[in-house]
Amino acid sequence: MKLRLVIAYDGTAFQGFQSQSHGLTVQDALEGVLARIVGEKVIIHGSGRTDAGVHALGQVIHFELTGEQVHQLSLRDSERWRVALNAWLPPTLRVMRVTRAGKGFHARFSASGKIYRYEIWHDKVLPPHLHKRASHLYGKLDLESIRHLCRMIEGPHDFRGFCANSGSLPESTIRTLYRVGLRKRGPALSITLEGDGFLYRMVRMLVGAMVQVAQEKKSIEEFQARLAEGKPWPTPAMAPAEGLYLVKALYGKRGNTPLVIPSLD
Amino acid sequence: MKLRLVIAYDGTAFQGFQSQSHGLTVQDALEGVLARIVGEKVIIHGSGRTDAGVHALGQVIHFELTGEQVHQLSLRDSERWRVALNAWLPPTLRVMRVTRAGKGFHARFSASGKIYRYEIWHDKVLPPHLHKRASHLYGKLDLESIRHLCRMIEGPHDFRGFCANSGSLPESTIRTLYRVGLRKRGPALSITLEGDGFLYRMVRMLVGAMVQVAQEKKSIEEFQARLAEGKPWPTPAMAPAEGLYLVKALYGKRGNTPLVIPSLD
Repeated sequence: MKLRLVIAYDGTAFQGFQSQSHGLTVQDALEGVLARIVGEKVIIHGSGRTDAGVHALGQVIHFELTGEQVHQLSLRDSERWRVALNAWLPPTLRVMRVTRAGKGFHARFSASGKIYRYEIWHDKVLPPHLHKRASHLYGKLDLESIRHLCRMIEGPHDFRGFCANSGSLPESTIRTLYRVGLRKRGPALSITLEGDGFLYRMVRMLVGAMVQVAQEKKSIEEFQARLAEGKPWPTPAMAPAEGLYLVKALYGKRGNTPLVIPSLD
Repeated sequence: MKLRLVIAYDGTAFQGFQSQSHGLTVQDALEGVLARIVGEKVIIHGSGRTDAGVHALGQVIHFELTGEQVHQLSLRDSERWRVALNAWLPPTLRVMRVTRAGKGFHARFSASGKIYRYEIWHDKVLPPHLHKRASHLYGKLDLESIRHLCRMIEGPHDFRGFCANSGSLPESTIRTLYRVGLRKRGPALSITLEGDGFLYRMVRMLVGAMVQVAQEKKSIEEFQARLAEGKPWPTPAMAPAEGLYLVKALYGKRGNTPLVIPSLD
C-alpha cells in the first residue's frame, strides 16, 4: 500500500528536510514516528528537499508499506493515518492530508512542478510574529525593477547562473517558470514562483539577485547577462532561508500546460 | 522627558507582561535594556498587563527620564531611541514607534480603551505556523450563536461573571464594549472586541463562554443569565492565552465617542 501525504512544517524547527548526520530533519521526524507505528523502518520520499529554515505549506511525501505491515495495522483508512501521525509528530510538523496513491506514484518523480513563495517585510521594524518567517529589508527597493525581472525569468531558461552548487550541476539546468509575480500588501511583499522544477537554491539566488537590482546594487542588464550567460556574479547575494515557503508540489497536467509560455529569448 | 512607546511581542517568548518572581517578562526585558542604555534603573508603565502566552501588536508603554539622564545620553530624538532599544531587545519583542509624551501622559491612566482580538483556527489540523498563535477547535461550532452573543455583550454591562479573579474584584466591574464582531475567512475565525476597559481575563472568559454556547454545551439563555446575574458557571471554560492579541491601546477621544451605543438592557 502506498500513501501520499501533504505535510506542512515550520522550517525553523528542523535542520532541513532530508536526513543528515547532525540535527533533527523533517525526514527524521516522520520516519521516527512511522517506525513507532509500523514497528519497522519505513523510508519516506519527498517531492524535493528544503534547506534548514525553509518552510513548507504543502510539501508532498509518499511511503510504501508491505502487505504484511498493512495486515498487522488497524490503520486502514487515510483519515486514521493522519490522526495517528499527528498524535506523535511535534506541532511544528503537521500532516494536512493523507490519500492512497497508485502504484506508479512517486512524490519526487511524479511531480510536474512546484510553487514557491518568498516573503519580504519592507519596513523599519520586523514585527515579532514575522521573526524567522520573512526576510527583513529596509531602505530603497524599486518594486518596478522586481516586476520587470519577474517577467524576464518567466518561461524556459538555463538557470545555471542562479544555482548554488555550480560544482555538481544536474544534467540539464534548463527549467521553465510558468508564472512569477510580485504582490504587495503594505510592507508585506511576496514573490511567487511556479515552475516545472527548481535547481538547488534557485529561488533564493533569484530573489537575492532581484533584491540587489531593486536596491540598485546591480543593474537590470547585469541580471539579464547573468541569466543569458549562466555565470553567477562574483558576490551573489542569496536571500535568507527564513523567507522561503514551499507552497505546493504539483502533480498531473497542470505543469504540462503552462499558463504562460513566453517565447524563448 | 517622557517617552511613549508602541511595542509588539510574541507572547510565547515571555512569562507575561509584568515583572514577577520567576521567568522573563516583557517588563524585565525592557527595563533590562533601559538600564543598560541609561545606566540606572528606569521603571516602565504599560497600558495594562497581558498573561503569559498572550501576544501584543500594539501595547503602549511609557517611561520618564530625569533631566540629568537625558543630558548624559546622545539619544535625543525618538527615532534613535527606537533603533537603540531594538538593537538590544530580542527579535520577539520590538519597539514599533517612539514618540515624546506630554507631562500628563500615563500609559495606563490615560488609556481610553483597548482593542483585543481572539484568533481561532476551526479545522481538523492546526497548521504549524499557527502553533501558539491561535486556538485550535474542531467539530460543531455554531457561528450564528457567536454573532448573536457578540451583539449581546456590546454596550455597558457588569462583566463580573466573566472575570477570573472573583476574589478581589475592582471597585467597579462595569465595562463598555463599543464593538464586538466575528470575522470568518475560511477556517480562520477572529473575534474582535473594542472597549473602554477589560477585567482580568475578561476576553478569554467571554470567548471561552461563547465557544461553549457555539458547541452547544451551554445555551444562549445561560450566557445571558451569566451576564445579567454576574455569576460564572460552575465549569467556566477560559479560552487559551495563545489565541489572544492585544491589538491596540486607545488614547484620546475615540473611546469617549463609541461607534455603537446600545441601550442598557
